[in-house]
Amino acid sequence: MELTDAVSLLTRTPTVLETLLTGLPSEWLHRNDGAGTWNAYDIVGHLAHGDATNWLPRARMIIEHGTGKAFEPFDREAMLRQPHQTISVLLNQFAQARRASLDELSTLDIDLSALGTHPELGEVRLGQLLAAWVAHDLTHLGQVAEVLARNYRDEVGPWRVYMPALDLVVTAE
Amino acid sequence: MELTDAVSLLTRTPTVLETLLTGLPSEWLHRNDGAGTWNAYDIVGHLAHGDATNWLPRARMIIEHGTGKAFEPFDREAMLRQPHQTISVLLNQFAQARRASLDELSTLDIDLSALGTHPELGEVRLGQLLAAWVAHDLTHLGQVAEVLARNYRDEVGPWRVYMPALDLVVTAE
Repeated sequence: MELTDAVSLLTRTPTVLETLLTGLPSEWLHRNDGAGTWNAYDIVGHLAHGDATNWLPRARMIIEHGTGKAFEPFDREAMLRQPHQTISVLLNQFAQARRASLDELSTLDIDLSALGTHPELGEVRLGQLLAAWVAHDLTHLGQVAEVLARNYRDEVGPWRVYMPALDLVVTAE
Repeated sequence: MELTDAVSLLTRTPTVLETLLTGLPSEWLHRNDGAGTWNAYDIVGHLAHGDATNWLPRARMIIEHGTGKAFEPFDREAMLRQPHQTISVLLNQFAQARRASLDELSTLDIDLSALGTHPELGEVRLGQLLAAWVAHDLTHLGQVAEVLARNYRDEVGPWRVYMPALDLVVTAE
C-alpha cells in the first residue's frame, strides 16, 4: 500500500458523503433495513466517531508504544447513543474529525511495518491499520449507497430483477 | 416516489463520482474482480452511456408513444468497446449527459403512472423507470466503492475478518 494513495482516499470521503447526503429528505437518511441495521445517518455518525476515537489514536499508539500497549476497543455503536443532529451538523463533525486526523497523520513518522497490538486481532502493522481505515471508509460508502437504493426497492417495479442489491439481506452491522 | 427526490439524487451522482475518482491512480481505477467484472472506470462509462441512450430516451418514449412502441434494448456493455479516455474526460462526459437528461426531464409533462413497454420486462410505468434510474445510480455507486475497497483486501491484514464486503464474490455484472 502507498501512504499517498491512502491519504488521497481518506481526504475525499467527507466531501463524497456531503455531496450525496446533504439536504436529502429524512425518509431517505433514516431508512434502514430493519431492526439492528444502520441508516445513512448512523453510518456517517459511525465514521465520525471512528475518526475521533479509533484510527488516528491507534496509529499514534503504534508509534508511541509499539506492541507494548493494546489499542482501546472501538465502540462500533457509539453513534447510536448520541443526541440527534441534522445531517449537515453530523457531516461537518465528520469532516472536521477527518481533517484533524489527517493533519496529525502528516506530522507522524510513518513506518508501515511498525507493529502494534489490537485487542481482538492481536499483532497488526501500521500499514494494515491505514489500509483498513481506507477500506472501512469505502465499504461504508457502499453501504450508504445501497441502503439508499433500497428505499426504491418497490418503486422500481419490474426493474427489481435487474438489481440484486435491492434484495440483499442485511443483518445488524 | 417523489419526482423531486429522484431529480435531487440524480443531480448528485456525477459530483459524487468526480470527488471519489478524479486523480486516483490507474491501479485503483482499473482494478476489477476478475474476468467479466467491471472496474470503477467501466462503471462510470456505463452510467454515461445510460444517460446518453437509455433513461431519458425511454421516458420520452413513454410520453410520446405510451405502450405502442417498445424501448430500444439497452447495451449494458457498450462502454467496454469505447476507446480509452482519462477518468476526467469520462466523468465530464457523464456530467454533461446527466445535465442534458435532467434539463430535458424538467421540460416534460410527467405522469408517473403513464405506461410504456420494456423490451424484456413488458409493461412498466414512468414512475418505475425514474425510480430505477435512481436505484441504478446508487447500486453502481455502491459497486464503485466496493471494487475500490477490494484493492486493499490483502493490505488490511487481519482486519479482513471485520469487512465481509472485501470477500464478496463478484461475477460478471
